[in-house]
Amino acid sequence: MFDNTGDSKTKLSELGEFGLIEHLTQFLDIKQTSTIKGIGDDAAVLKHEDEIVVTTDLLVEGVHFDLAFMPLKHLGYKSVMVNLSDVYAMNAKATQITVSIACSNRFTVEALEEIYAGIHHAASLYHVDVIGGDTTSAVKGITISITAVGTAPKEKIVYRSTAQPNDLMVVSGDLGGAFMGLKVLQREQEVFKVNPNNQPDLEPYTYIVERQLKPEARKDIPELLEKLGVLPTSMIDISDGLSSEILHLCKNSKVGATLYEEKLPLDQGVISACEEFELDSTTVVLNGGEDYELLFSIAQKDYDKIKGNPNLSVIGHFNEAKEGIHLITRDQLKIPMKARGWNSMTKEEK
Amino acid sequence: MFDNTGDSKTKLSELGEFGLIEHLTQFLDIKQTSTIKGIGDDAAVLKHEDEIVVTTDLLVEGVHFDLAFMPLKHLGYKSVMVNLSDVYAMNAKATQITVSIACSNRFTVEALEEIYAGIHHAASLYHVDVIGGDTTSAVKGITISITAVGTAPKEKIVYRSTAQPNDLMVVSGDLGGAFMGLKVLQREQEVFKVNPNNQPDLEPYTYIVERQLKPEARKDIPELLEKLGVLPTSMIDISDGLSSEILHLCKNSKVGATLYEEKLPLDQGVISACEEFELDSTTVVLNGGEDYELLFSIAQKDYDKIKGNPNLSVIGHFNEAKEGIHLITRDQLKIPMKARGWNSMTKEEK
Repeated sequence: MFDNTGDSKTKLSELGEFGLIEHLTQFLDIKQTSTIKGIGDDAAVLKHEDEIVVTTDLLVEGVHFDLAFMPLKHLGYKSVMVNLSDVYAMNAKATQITVSIACSNRFTVEALEEIYAGIHHAASLYHVDVIGGDTTSAVKGITISITAVGTAPKEKIVYRSTAQPNDLMVVSGDLGGAFMGLKVLQREQEVFKVNPNNQPDLEPYTYIVERQLKPEARKDIPELLEKLGVLPTSMIDISDGLSSEILHLCKNSKVGATLYEEKLPLDQGVISACEEFELDSTTVVLNGGEDYELLFSIAQKDYDKIKGNPNLSVIGHFNEAKEGIHLITRDQLKIPMKARGWNSMTKEEK
Repeated sequence: MFDNTGDSKTKLSELGEFGLIEHLTQFLDIKQTSTIKGIGDDAAVLKHEDEIVVTTDLLVEGVHFDLAFMPLKHLGYKSVMVNLSDVYAMNAKATQITVSIACSNRFTVEALEEIYAGIHHAASLYHVDVIGGDTTSAVKGITISITAVGTAPKEKIVYRSTAQPNDLMVVSGDLGGAFMGLKVLQREQEVFKVNPNNQPDLEPYTYIVERQLKPEARKDIPELLEKLGVLPTSMIDISDGLSSEILHLCKNSKVGATLYEEKLPLDQGVISACEEFELDSTTVVLNGGEDYELLFSIAQKDYDKIKGNPNLSVIGHFNEAKEGIHLITRDQLKIPMKARGWNSMTKEEK
């Protein structure tokens, strides 16, 4: 996409703010008919017939990602996914994003080109238009702020607050992969520090490393549910660990829940990595973050429509609030659930 | 608004990410009928009948503001203004904002409360709903990312690209104040470093210091133009200095322009401060930034409608592109205009 001239290192100040934005956004094209005007004015102009959804997320270097093992292109891609995931969690279609980046002069034009290449790739694959943003310098590090816009007819939008007792609890895909991928990458980084000549063999960990570095938002799930004729009664995306998201749904919907350990969807790669790292896979699923799967509730009458679908797992059900929120272990123990998910605010500062 | 218990200093980690967001947004109320769902789900839900405009801006500590003289409440207020200004520059009505903040553990809960108090005050005065956001830790400093949403009927939206030759060039308010306010504040900071007991007397500089610390976005100008029956042919907000914005309008509209030095609107406070600092007021107006006034073009036939309005000054006119872009000085010299506006990318890193 960009004319990459090998190892050239162009300082950001050489292009200036406007030159830089123009340079980075030169290959963007507009695909959504709802985008009337994209980049290039004081604001973008959109026209949506239906309800629109708006969500925003910040990714901060040293808090949300480590450039020691996160390639810049992947960082751009993941920044988009994190935001689109929230749009899909409303059962909406993602249509536009804005992208703001603040970075120190440690970053070159070529580094920003890499990040934007990832952003453009994600936007292209997920059919969203990049309609605006801001690029500025920072004293230290890099921060990416993306706002995503989506749309859905009013009657299709699914909130967190509308799960009902006796609804089934359903999750897309499998869980725990992103956390275990991070574990593998952090271990390799430690090895690299001791012996920089060591060539890491990440081949056995391909799936979980990809879950960490290049997650995919579940654009397909709202489409699948539409096709199956199922409208979830509530939905949330799983960014901070399953237990945290279950607690959010229960709190917002004023219901209780029962989750079955034996039903948790695990990829073989997660099981193997948990054994290797001597971690309990259930703990990883409950408290690890960044899976970007969707957690939702459906009415019992819809069970037959989703039964056996390889993308969906029924992992429990919702109860009356007074029954509380519990995990039923493989040994039939009933354990109250508490949030211990990933929380950027309790991270230790360096 | 918040229960301020004197000098208490609560660490951010004591509340955690979700607790913090809940705490900071607890007093928010929804005023716009277009806001279906505000904070508290994966995304906010809006319903706009007309076109919507979307704009986003980042404010980075050490680049866009200096907390040595920028009170936190003002910082919150200004962050909102910077974004609303872009909405008004589309001739639209601002309706919603999202607010994302990344800050290091140098900031306490009470510090964030101050910033949010400024944000809420701005949102309340300008009738916009705070509908979402993200609060996270950062390794260093504080970064504020705001996205603003507005709305206008299709035929009322004004772009940068539609100025015509012979249109009049109009500016709201007066220019150069924010830059001279910054000069005064920076001088006082230097004095303070030498003698911390010195009590600065900012009274003579009240207007220009306020222009820097607490700018107001020109919500009133689209309303005034509507009342006067004037639809600008193009519009932009003045955030980076007048010359930079004139060049943007000309480039986007493919026209030239003639600006008259003698017509530039100056407050007496700016004139006095320029004399004191031995700065040329025209240079300050052309290259200083952050005035957040609106620059627009109108058809000649509309001149009588705006003539004599104290909020508006005709400062020049647009030409054919081939005639170029010039400043006519008080001495009738014709000088080609070049952008030398404020540019965060060329700022020296510390």
